[in-house]
Amino acid sequence: MTITIIGIGLIGGSLGITLKECGFATRVIGVDNRPENIDKAIRRRLVDEGMSLAEGVAVADVIIVATPVDAMRKLLPEILDRVGEKQIVVDVGSTKELLLEEIQGHKNRSRLVACHPMAGTEFSGPEAAIPNLFDGKMCVIVDGSDSAQDAVSTAGRLFKSAGMHLSHLDRKAHDVHCAYISHISHIASFALALTVLQKEENENRIFELASSGFGSTVRLAKSSADMWVPIFRQNRDNVLDVLDEHIEQLSKFRTQLIKRDFDGFYERIERANQIQKILK
Amino acid sequence: MTITIIGIGLIGGSLGITLKECGFATRVIGVDNRPENIDKAIRRRLVDEGMSLAEGVAVADVIIVATPVDAMRKLLPEILDRVGEKQIVVDVGSTKELLLEEIQGHKNRSRLVACHPMAGTEFSGPEAAIPNLFDGKMCVIVDGSDSAQDAVSTAGRLFKSAGMHLSHLDRKAHDVHCAYISHISHIASFALALTVLQKEENENRIFELASSGFGSTVRLAKSSADMWVPIFRQNRDNVLDVLDEHIEQLSKFRTQLIKRDFDGFYERIERANQIQKILK
Repeated sequence: MTITIIGIGLIGGSLGITLKECGFATRVIGVDNRPENIDKAIRRRLVDEGMSLAEGVAVADVIIVATPVDAMRKLLPEILDRVGEKQIVVDVGSTKELLLEEIQGHKNRSRLVACHPMAGTEFSGPEAAIPNLFDGKMCVIVDGSDSAQDAVSTAGRLFKSAGMHLSHLDRKAHDVHCAYISHISHIASFALALTVLQKEENENRIFELASSGFGSTVRLAKSSADMWVPIFRQNRDNVLDVLDEHIEQLSKFRTQLIKRDFDGFYERIERANQIQKILK
Repeated sequence: MTITIIGIGLIGGSLGITLKECGFATRVIGVDNRPENIDKAIRRRLVDEGMSLAEGVAVADVIIVATPVDAMRKLLPEILDRVGEKQIVVDVGSTKELLLEEIQGHKNRSRLVACHPMAGTEFSGPEAAIPNLFDGKMCVIVDGSDSAQDAVSTAGRLFKSAGMHLSHLDRKAHDVHCAYISHISHIASFALALTVLQKEENENRIFELASSGFGSTVRLAKSSADMWVPIFRQNRDNVLDVLDEHIEQLSKFRTQLIKRDFDGFYERIERANQIQKILK
């Protein structure tokens, strides 16, 4: 199968090398608006060759769109305009509602399978691409009933051959869930980094951040603004809801500290500990 | 050297097995107010034998106090009452200011070396103890000039033989730093867990938390209330300062979302990315 990947970053590049290694793809073509990304991707064997968007779309069985979600809004209709009835387009964006509403009426909508492989690291670009990124992780197929059955089935096989489990959600539920389990974690991490950087400016000495628990909570603060700002823009309303709830939870801890209500503080930590059972 | 460890949990137990394995300790004695912890610790070879507090203190060259910090306030004066001029007491508490102020006038103050090995996991109890927990991490010696030189030197060798680097801070600076680099991370993590659990109650379905970045930011939310509430109680004022700053940073993101100021949001993410350089 010939796979064209548009946007050779962490996710696009990792899919390229993984799908080639597992044998699902016989040929992987890279499309990227930065020529140096294609060079790096070929050198790192993430893709076999580079092409223009038009060429890449024309020769592919499956076209994977792995750009930041703002670029997707522009690219997806253009790509769907070009595809034939046997070709399949898969987007791997982290937000779905706006994107799928805009594409709703497109004559080739059924050739698109909206997917969200729930995998990633705090790094970005082709340098960050790795095989096995997807191994054992969940891929959510969104609004699957709006896609042709053959397209859903091929997309499902694609992600399964990359080692993923499949799950199904509609676009509204998907965006709400992602606000809770991914987007808020990133904002919390960015805010924590800024809190400490603010302090460092005044104090001029911060020791051993990595071994104190801080390293783990702040890992995501290294994440790319180019990827995340479009996500926050598109999922603004859900993210605001969760952010309000999160600030509320922090404010309750604050009130408990002010009142020296350490029994209440204890109870709320014990409740927080229950996250263990849903984290597995 | 005979080492008595009081409180055989994650830190105490890990020190026991590590100091025995590296040869620093020839004999490790465990003291714990829960007899089952001693049984577990002997079975897991964290300690060689169990004793009462009085016996354990009497026979030791070095006494390590590794209980939660509230128990330390009670235990440290009692232990210092009992020690001779060649014995050394090391506490490994996460907060220092209150503890060291209370012990300031004790006739044997100079036999105590206040230390903070900056290592840990989100787990607790002797089951959680592991060798190599301290490897390559930082141990802070606090108010070292209030301790006898031989005591500081032995405590330093102890932590170095466990694989740690040494650093020095006074008690005020220590507690401020820990509020920033450790205590706030835990509160943020607890609050994030509560945010999601609140949601789960209503939605009844949260998928794949672990692979979404959530697992990393919320890891610390599994931490023990028995250990952490005493820390927050003793470091309340510093923690309140940092918590205010953190809520302020989150509120700025909130305002930017409300105003759709995504350029400002982008700039603040780029600033947060700079945490990379101090995390190494």
